[in-house]
Amino acid sequence: MTDIARLKAALGPLKIEDNPAIVKQKSRDFFWYSPVLKRQLDHVTADLVVSPKNEAEVIHVLRTCFEQDVPVTPRGSGTGNYGQAMPLAGGVILSLAEMNKVKSIGRGRVVAEAGAILAEIDRQTKAHSQQEIRLHPSTYNTASIAGFVAGGSGGIGSINWGGLRDIGNVLSLRVVTMEETPRVLELKGRELGKVMHAYGTNGIVTEVEIPLDAAYDWIDVVAGFDDYMKAVRFANLVANQDGLLFKEIATVAAPVPYDYFLRHQKFLKREHSVVLLMVAPHAIDPFLALAARDKAEILFRSDTATDAEKKGLPPVFELTWNHTTLRGLRVDPTITYLQVLYRFPTHVESVERMTKIFGDEVPGHLEFIRFDGNVAAAGLPIVRFTSEARLDEIIRIHEANGCPIFNPHRYTLEEGGMKQTDAVQLAFKREADPKGLLNPGKMIAWENPDFDLKSDKVYLFPGMQAAE
Amino acid sequence: MTDIARLKAALGPLKIEDNPAIVKQKSRDFFWYSPVLKRQLDHVTADLVVSPKNEAEVIHVLRTCFEQDVPVTPRGSGTGNYGQAMPLAGGVILSLAEMNKVKSIGRGRVVAEAGAILAEIDRQTKAHSQQEIRLHPSTYNTASIAGFVAGGSGGIGSINWGGLRDIGNVLSLRVVTMEETPRVLELKGRELGKVMHAYGTNGIVTEVEIPLDAAYDWIDVVAGFDDYMKAVRFANLVANQDGLLFKEIATVAAPVPYDYFLRHQKFLKREHSVVLLMVAPHAIDPFLALAARDKAEILFRSDTATDAEKKGLPPVFELTWNHTTLRGLRVDPTITYLQVLYRFPTHVESVERMTKIFGDEVPGHLEFIRFDGNVAAAGLPIVRFTSEARLDEIIRIHEANGCPIFNPHRYTLEEGGMKQTDAVQLAFKREADPKGLLNPGKMIAWENPDFDLKSDKVYLFPGMQAAE
Repeated sequence: MTDIARLKAALGPLKIEDNPAIVKQKSRDFFWYSPVLKRQLDHVTADLVVSPKNEAEVIHVLRTCFEQDVPVTPRGSGTGNYGQAMPLAGGVILSLAEMNKVKSIGRGRVVAEAGAILAEIDRQTKAHSQQEIRLHPSTYNTASIAGFVAGGSGGIGSINWGGLRDIGNVLSLRVVTMEETPRVLELKGRELGKVMHAYGTNGIVTEVEIPLDAAYDWIDVVAGFDDYMKAVRFANLVANQDGLLFKEIATVAAPVPYDYFLRHQKFLKREHSVVLLMVAPHAIDPFLALAARDKAEILFRSDTATDAEKKGLPPVFELTWNHTTLRGLRVDPTITYLQVLYRFPTHVESVERMTKIFGDEVPGHLEFIRFDGNVAAAGLPIVRFTSEARLDEIIRIHEANGCPIFNPHRYTLEEGGMKQTDAVQLAFKREADPKGLLNPGKMIAWENPDFDLKSDKVYLFPGMQAAE
Repeated sequence: MTDIARLKAALGPLKIEDNPAIVKQKSRDFFWYSPVLKRQLDHVTADLVVSPKNEAEVIHVLRTCFEQDVPVTPRGSGTGNYGQAMPLAGGVILSLAEMNKVKSIGRGRVVAEAGAILAEIDRQTKAHSQQEIRLHPSTYNTASIAGFVAGGSGGIGSINWGGLRDIGNVLSLRVVTMEETPRVLELKGRELGKVMHAYGTNGIVTEVEIPLDAAYDWIDVVAGFDDYMKAVRFANLVANQDGLLFKEIATVAAPVPYDYFLRHQKFLKREHSVVLLMVAPHAIDPFLALAARDKAEILFRSDTATDAEKKGLPPVFELTWNHTTLRGLRVDPTITYLQVLYRFPTHVESVERMTKIFGDEVPGHLEFIRFDGNVAAAGLPIVRFTSEARLDEIIRIHEANGCPIFNPHRYTLEEGGMKQTDAVQLAFKREADPKGLLNPGKMIAWENPDFDLKSDKVYLFPGMQAAE
């Protein structure tokens, strides 16, 4: 057990929160999207929340906790969905929220402190030079940059740039190790794989450098179809138009849009399956030419909607990725979701097969993305949850049909399926966190020395040995 | 025969050139890259060159020539390679070179007059808002925007944006028809297909609106390999990295780089096959990490080269596309080239097969491009020319192996193979040029009413009916 009084004394003048209600609140994320994680993690709480204001204070926390054998779990804004930032072994929540400055903006790049909010970074890069970040989750308005890098995978923009897994989407990271004398590492290139999507188990990110792209006043479009597969085929067609620029292309099967997108309901019928898009202003005319040819019904476009129509509407990206699930949960708290990869070139056929098998038990939701150079689809289908056994069966049926699942109902890196740990990463953790105090319980390969590092499973972030 | 005196009188105060030597020079392009076209077109010349200064003058020329039944062949800078701007039936060369103003620059778009030079457009859009044009030929420094649209297909930037064939890469065109009373049409969306890559046979383009992208100080890189297929595989690997931004990725087989890239020879060995790249500054570190892993030898990079090393060097893009051929022709005037499509997903295998079949008779040269949403390769291999019969045989062997040829040794749209004419385009020509006076002899379907419009051939710009 952590000796709280001794720890607080050693942490000295840093900003510390120990009110149990607040500490519990800061020990949680959006794990409750999963009925499985809700059952498993609901009790989890830290002992203290420490909020450093700069890297020197981060080092002080890590040195102190190392000395006192106190677990440390880093936290950005707590927008994760898999308990990424939840302290399974208690101890300290290291909140990076107050380290939120944009440090420098250059042509095609920005450096920001770990806790900087994505939308705030964009606000500054747009004002500076009409540039914006390439990739962001649907939690853009609240998520932090280091939280995204350490716990996310991709999102809005992945139709152009792939995911965080892809080299080039993060340029450099400053990382503090948890040792007797913490070191500050500057990681670049393929070394970044050591801490990407590692939930802070391999070091504390204090600064992130990411690439920027040209900023546009993206036009939100909702296109309607009377059949889900027509929506999917149209989305796939436009996603493969090399001359058209989109920031987001998603499909959602009826009746999810009408039932769950309450603010947009006035534009929808219950039988509408939709394609949700963010279209560059200079791509809207040619996009509409294709939409007219393919008989897509344009239900909403933000560039011609009246102020009255737009009043109270969230941006289209807040209907996508896991915001689709969130809007569903607000209407029907019994639903949950899955994360599926529909691989190129069979993604459309795979979606059709799954749609036929499950019908309205698993209403379709696809995010079109670039994956290894081609357009593919990440699925975040709604699941009308009945039992954990049936959920596992739904997962097995997907995998048996060649659709890998990144299981959002697991809190470990390996079982979540996005991150493959291997000998290279384990060796790095032995250096960076020899006592295993960073976000303990999240990396099976560390907890269980007998864990088989080899696997045929598909991982979004493959092990680093495989890439040698 | 054209009554020159009467025509000159009617053209009135416009700028007219009738010095036969200058008229002949302005009746030519780079057709002589092809020994076949050199034999066929060497005698071609117009009667007059007319250089309008604005659209009203263009209308005046077209009205006058319509009345007097004089053929009109439009010309930008004459950088084409297939005799696009060569007046097979004499008459007037309509030079758009003096209509060269950039008219407006917006976010993501620019409008320029037909004769505006691509590099000059970029100079202005960069100064205005750090934007640049998406696609340009290797003749960037001399080619005009309307010449590119009416006679080109793609080029530097096609690795990101596909080609001119792709909807969205040209936003709108102003086109003047050749009728008793010429009309000014504003084409958009799918209508643009009527005049794209039509060599001015379907109307005279006076103004072009194209999209812009963020401008970067691209880093020129030459990477060397001891084996051509290693170069091809590395190029294909980096071209499929979704997180890395390139503007150009090409491969050239040994000994072409050493023998023909004379200004770069000091960096090369004769056995070097090379990958030529333009890399975004923020992509250079991750690119170099991949290059190191895959044992690419970095022979040149412009960001670290000394001023002495860079002195007199052309930019890397002037080693690519048809500049590769040009540099070859300067050293060995007996060579020529082909244009091949190596289709995804078999492009690398196809290249390997062709390389094995032909060896040094057809040294490889690939331009990596996006094509229908995937990375593929356009080939512009050098051909060590012996006879027209052997050239035709080389073409047949490519096609028999599933590699379509866009034959650069033909001056008609259909035989060139890039542009499929069909009933929609013919109907448009009947409206826009009822007397068939625009660039006569280039559209077989017009000249020969029995021409079979149906074809199994692969066309870069497919007919417009097919897209209905």
